[in-house]
Order: sequence, then C-alpha cells, then structure tokens
Amino acid sequence: MAQATSLNEIVVIEDGSITLPQGYKAGGMHCGIKRKRLDLGYIVSEVPATVAGVYTTNIFQAAPLVVTQESIAKENKTQAILVNSGNANACTGEQGIADALAMQKGFANELGIPEHLVAVTSTGVIGELLPMDKIETGIKQILQKEYENEENFKQAILTTDTCTKEIAVQFTIDGKKVSIGGTAKGSGMIHPNMATMLGFVTTDAHINHDDLLFALREVTNTTFNMITVDGDTSTNDMVLVMANGLAENNQLTKEHPEWDVFKQGLKMVSESLAKKIARDGEGATKLVEVQVDGAFSLEAARAVGKSIISSNLVKTAIYGTDPNWGRIVTAIGYSGVPVKPNAIKVSIGPFTVFENGLPSQFIEEEVKEYLELENVKLIVELDQGDFSATAWGCDLTYDYVKINASYRT
Amino acid sequence: MAQATSLNEIVVIEDGSITLPQGYKAGGMHCGIKRKRLDLGYIVSEVPATVAGVYTTNIFQAAPLVVTQESIAKENKTQAILVNSGNANACTGEQGIADALAMQKGFANELGIPEHLVAVTSTGVIGELLPMDKIETGIKQILQKEYENEENFKQAILTTDTCTKEIAVQFTIDGKKVSIGGTAKGSGMIHPNMATMLGFVTTDAHINHDDLLFALREVTNTTFNMITVDGDTSTNDMVLVMANGLAENNQLTKEHPEWDVFKQGLKMVSESLAKKIARDGEGATKLVEVQVDGAFSLEAARAVGKSIISSNLVKTAIYGTDPNWGRIVTAIGYSGVPVKPNAIKVSIGPFTVFENGLPSQFIEEEVKEYLELENVKLIVELDQGDFSATAWGCDLTYDYVKINASYRT
Repeated sequence: MAQATSLNEIVVIEDGSITLPQGYKAGGMHCGIKRKRLDLGYIVSEVPATVAGVYTTNIFQAAPLVVTQESIAKENKTQAILVNSGNANACTGEQGIADALAMQKGFANELGIPEHLVAVTSTGVIGELLPMDKIETGIKQILQKEYENEENFKQAILTTDTCTKEIAVQFTIDGKKVSIGGTAKGSGMIHPNMATMLGFVTTDAHINHDDLLFALREVTNTTFNMITVDGDTSTNDMVLVMANGLAENNQLTKEHPEWDVFKQGLKMVSESLAKKIARDGEGATKLVEVQVDGAFSLEAARAVGKSIISSNLVKTAIYGTDPNWGRIVTAIGYSGVPVKPNAIKVSIGPFTVFENGLPSQFIEEEVKEYLELENVKLIVELDQGDFSATAWGCDLTYDYVKINASYRT
Repeated sequence: MAQATSLNEIVVIEDGSITLPQGYKAGGMHCGIKRKRLDLGYIVSEVPATVAGVYTTNIFQAAPLVVTQESIAKENKTQAILVNSGNANACTGEQGIADALAMQKGFANELGIPEHLVAVTSTGVIGELLPMDKIETGIKQILQKEYENEENFKQAILTTDTCTKEIAVQFTIDGKKVSIGGTAKGSGMIHPNMATMLGFVTTDAHINHDDLLFALREVTNTTFNMITVDGDTSTNDMVLVMANGLAENNQLTKEHPEWDVFKQGLKMVSESLAKKIARDGEGATKLVEVQVDGAFSLEAARAVGKSIISSNLVKTAIYGTDPNWGRIVTAIGYSGVPVKPNAIKVSIGPFTVFENGLPSQFIEEEVKEYLELENVKLIVELDQGDFSATAWGCDLTYDYVKINASYRT
C-alpha cells in the first residue's frame, strides 16, 4: 500500500485490490487447463456477503452464468467465487451445466459452506468441455496457504490480457472506514452490454441487496457497458460485487445520507477497471476516450460515443496517428441519432478539427503529435441538449489481427 | 464479349458492362485529383433515361448526393453521370454544394443538355474542397474521343479498390433483347445500408419510373445492403440505375408478364457487383458468404447474417483458417434476435460444426482446409421459421489495418 490520493473524500489505495476490504482472502494456482499460466482462482469472504451481479446479454449464456445466477437468486448471498480461465464452459450443453455444478459443489465442500453460496465462472475457449479431473484436483489443493495470494487470483483470471487490472478505494460511512476493491479481466470480445469480461468487486460495506444491485446496474451502464475493443459481446461476461458488511456501518440504502459516497466509490472502481480493460484491448497501443456532450438524451450521447469508439476506421486512424476527423464525423452520422450536422464540433484532444459543418483550421503535425500519446481523447459537442456520456476503447492494430487469427477463443 | 452462360433465360455476357445496353457511352481520364490514376469519368445516354437511385443513410450526406437527388426529383430522368474519385466532396459546406453544382453545370454545357439531367457524384477523401480548376479543365476535355472507353470509366471511379467490378446480362422482354450492365466501386467504409460504394447500372429497358425505383429498392435490400467490409457506413454511397428505353419493349411495370425476368436480371447484376465489392474489401483475401435459413422473419434472418459477417472475431478467424464456430455462435447470440440456442445448426461449408447446443464431431484439419479456399460459406439454420437471407463480407487481415492506418479517407 503506497501513497494515497484523495477525491471527494474517496481515497484511492495504490496497489490495493480485492483483499483490501476486511474479511476477504483470495488465491490462485495452475491446475493444468492452460499450459503454464495460472488458471484457477478464488475469492472467499469470512462471512456470507450480500451479492449483486450483472451478466452478458448474449443469448448463449455460458453454463457457469446459469448456475451462478440461479444460486444467487436463492438468498442474494455469496461467500466464495471460484474462477477458471483457459476454458469458458460455454456451448457445452447439459454436461457443461453438470461441470459448473460440480465445480460449485467441490469448492463448497472444501469450504464447508452451502453450495449456493459459491459463485462459479469461467473464461477462455468456447465449446470445449472442462477438464474436470484437473479442476477437481485443483479445487482440493487451492485453499492451501501457498496459493493464497491476491496477485495469484488476478493472474488466474487472465486470458489474452497482458496485465492484471486492479484498484481499491476507501472512504468513511457512519464514521466507519469502508473499502471497495476490484479486479477484472478482459481483452478481446469486448463490447458494450457486458464485454468478455469478468469483474470482481469486494467491499466490507453493510448494504441492502436491492440497493447494491441498483447501484451496480447504474454504475455498469456508465463504465463496463461503455467500453469496446472489437464489437463482440461474449457468452461469459459477468460482474459480481460482494458486500460482507464487516465495516459495520449502518446498512446502506438509497436513503442513507452517505449513499452517494458509496456509489461514487463503486463508480471509481468500475470506471478504473473498465478503462484498464479497454487499454489492454487485444493488440492495443492506446486508450481512447470519447466524450460526447450536448446530446438531447443520455441514450443519444451513449449511442454517438459507442458508434465512434466502435469504428474500425477511427481505430485504425488513431493507430496510424492520422487526425482523420472525417471518419469520426462519419461514425457520428451513422450512429442512428438524428444529429444536426452543422451544429457539431469535434475535437481531438485540445484541437478543434470540425465545426459548423466544415473542417477547422488546425496544424496537422500538432494533432499527429497529440495522437502519439498513450491516452487519446476525442470530444464531440452535439449542441442539442444537456446530456453527456463517455466511452472508452482502443486502437486497432496489426497485433489485433495476429492475436485473433491464431488464438482460439 | 466472350462466351455466354444462361440462367433462367437470363444470359450473363462475359466482359460486358455499362455500355452493353443500347445507347450508352462511357469514358474516363486523369484530371489531376489523384497523382496518377484516372479520377474523372462519365456515362452518357443518347436520350434521357428514366432513373432510380438509393442513397446513404448517413446523416452527413455528401454535397453531390444532395445535388443529384434534387435534380432527379425534377422529372425522374438522367441523361449523364459525372463521377470523380480522390475527393468525396463531403463535409465541405456551402462551397461543396456550389462545387457539385458547378460540376453538373459544366458537364451539362459540354453535352448541351439541361443541368438537372446530369447526376454528379464523388468518392475519396472527406473534408477537402474539390480542386475545381482541375475538374473544370477535365470536364472540357473528357468528351474527346480518346477518353471514351468503358474501361476508363471503371478505372476512374476506384479508390482503394484493387480491381474494377462489372457485369452485364441479357434477356428478352416482349421479344426484344434487353440488356442490363453495371459497374461499382467500393472497398473500405463498407457496411449494410449502402456501403462506401458507388454503383452504376444501365439498361435499355423501357420501364416505368416508380416500378424501377421499387425494383431497385427491393433488390438493394438483398444485395448491396447485405455486404460489409468494416461496419462503417459512408457519406457518399449511391446506386443509380438508368433505363433509356432503347430496347423498345412495351413499358415494364409490376403488371407486365415478364416483370420478374427484368427484376431477376437487375438482381443478378446487383448481387454480382455486391459480391465483388465484398471480395475486394480492404486487405481481404477471401469472400465470405453467410446464409441464414429458418428464421421467423426476413428481418431476423438479415440481422443474424449481418451480425456474423460484421464480427471482427469471425473475420480474423477465417483469415487464420481457424474453424472457430464459437465465435460464429457468439455473434448469433448478440444479434438481437431471440434465437433458440439448442435449435441452431452451424456449418462451415459442408461441415456441420455446431448442433443441439453442442459442438459437432468434425475433423479440424478438413475444416481448416476448406477455410483455405478463396470463397468461404457459413450456413446457419435457426429452425424457427421459413425466412432466409444471405450476407457477404470478407476476412480481416493485417493489410486492412495497414491500409487504414495510413490511407486518408
């Protein structure tokens, strides 16, 4: 835990993650699904935690998502999460469901807790059955002390990711210190409405279930659902928030005077993870942020932002540091939002490139130089209202093609 | 005109194109917009032709599209088309409109016909003003005999295309020989609902305007609007059909006993051009065809087809000859169509790869070998009804990134 920076009373704890909140431990190991890298991980809370989840909108929901949702529905509690990478257990039929249930049961037995308190999830190749012998052997060993390590968990959930993704924040509720920590994976098959993405958020806040779910859904819409890498929405996406109450604050609800502090903390964690996923998009060299202002509705602002951030032509232009505002304008034009072409202003970083229906006077070399930065921001002013939205993505590079022409997801 | 092959009484005339129908001439030249390649072209009919057009759905319609649509609206007639490549005259404000009008007026003067009988269109870079001095000099020379050549026209409309695209068919209506010829350009910024694509179709059929427009719209929905290269819908797309009546058949209407022959001929021309555009997608090495059967509606069949053909992950897998049915199934799952996962059958060419919610037994090497072909077909059976649709696209390759990280469109 290095130095901390503060924002609205919410402090970011550097290097903090899912075990910063009280009462959580995490671990990971190599059980043999992947060749070498870690592929099985867990988070366990000392006590059953209130849980809320959001899941992929893809009609082909993977088996563990079905099992986890049904389990959570029983009492909105989860005490443990078991994750494997390297195999998504998706499109695996009845055997897939049986395998997800077996993972759940196996880990519940090791912990001595009811099965429905274990959430299971998987990420990796679609359509292959899980190697259950390896997983079951792994489950029997994974709670050993040598595997207990937050870093191991963060490693064990990765697929084509090039780095782990984590953040933690702290703030005060009812005078009690409350922490929220999170980690996520996701690199390809990433698109709004839940990416191929797993997000795990822990908190020691004491919070009402319905309000936690409300907060998670609201926050997801402005964070995880506003990122795209390649426009593909996966079968396995899920974000789970566990809240075990060990901070001993009075129960948070929407009526609690410090509700907004909690929601802001959850948003900071989610936005940070979402941006890290976008930046780590397959083959990406840059994080691209698109800010849309002046829309006549929130939906319109989001639609314009997503249209731009999803455009292969915009993404390749940014990779090529080409100030190609024409492609940005084109993407606005096919977003489906009835914009007013002559009212729109487009900026690349501090440089206005399009205004009053015409390209602006700008010095090409200056904008090219800006586009060489690792974090690039596009700003669109629609001048039709007061709604704003931000979307995040990355550039489209040779390496994206390389990774996806050879990696079997 | 080499040998001919016949289909339902409709004969494909090999090497035929826009000047096969009676009364059309075409030409092209280098006027100086591009460095070396031809960049200005025309089609002229001996007599005013009934005309029908379909145009981009992008809100930012380029200036020539505005001018051409207004001109055609006057009496649904066009006698000449003037096209430049290298500059799209899009996002160019009032000066862009003035330039498009000047192109129209200049060419009408050379031909000695009313201005509204000249359609103008442009393709190329967005947001730069046309070099009108070069274009006006070109217009004064382009009708010279040395530039009159159908091949020149086909060259003059290209941008990142690697080849010209043409087809012609002949059939009989009322005992009269009727021809339809077509050429098109398009390689990047290609997506359903009019790609960055120009299509020019000529026919000597005598046909009622409203019925011609009806036929064009219907045919466009199953051909030009079912291709994608990169999901970007351009500002300049347009398909124009000119029908000059010189075949002297009785006027075609939907009630004419041979209406279906004409419509089928128009569809053959449009489908052939659409497939050639998809195959020539930027960086593409393959034409990919997705056939969707058993949908509960035509819209559902099209949505599933477009979802698959637009998936970057499916496109990179095909480039890598990876029988990655999981990505196909995923794309079906996020198409927005309420499919039944366990009812779906997916085939890659002759090989069934997914059925009853599970991967099929197939020999990976056999499917890989099939995917090495230049024409790849994916077949999806949804088992929900009787509607079918076909979509065309291409693979996503290193060269797509290369072309678009450096070429300014």
